[in-house]
Amino acid sequence: MGIYTIVGLTAAAFTTFSFLPQAIKVIKTKQTKDLSLVMYSVLTIGLFLWLTYGILVKDIPVIIANLITFIFAAIILIMKIKYK
Amino acid sequence: MGIYTIVGLTAAAFTTFSFLPQAIKVIKTKQTKDLSLVMYSVLTIGLFLWLTYGILVKDIPVIIANLITFIFAAIILIMKIKYK
Repeated sequence: MGIYTIVGLTAAAFTTFSFLPQAIKVIKTKQTKDLSLVMYSVLTIGLFLWLTYGILVKDIPVIIANLITFIFAAIILIMKIKYK
Repeated sequence: MGIYTIVGLTAAAFTTFSFLPQAIKVIKTKQTKDLSLVMYSVLTIGLFLWLTYGILVKDIPVIIANLITFIFAAIILIMKIKYK
């Protein structure tokens, strides 16, 4: 595996799993006042479109990375709507 | 431009600009208690790696999308550190 691919995969792992601690935080605290509802609405739609794009062009890394991020973002969005 | 490209570009625009309302919110309110410091630390590093990857593989859309998102995420991270 080349250095470029390693940088790309590390980048994807960081941006994908960055949302996990935020999801855990809102589940634990049920505090969502400072989170932007518009951000998580637009982000969740955007990640769903990325997932759709990955399926259309049959790109497995795009599908996997965006499916995981979509799940985290959707959890945060649901908690924001529930506990705003 | 094909339908696949339109879906991909729309996805990129949504995920990139989703962070703008969150950045505006923290600048206006200076309230960051509910934001995860770990999320914005890992995300900002991840976006910097994506930017580096884009430069390495000379991919203009990857460079532009991640540069803009990096700026928004870095603003939110700085506000989180300043007003935590």
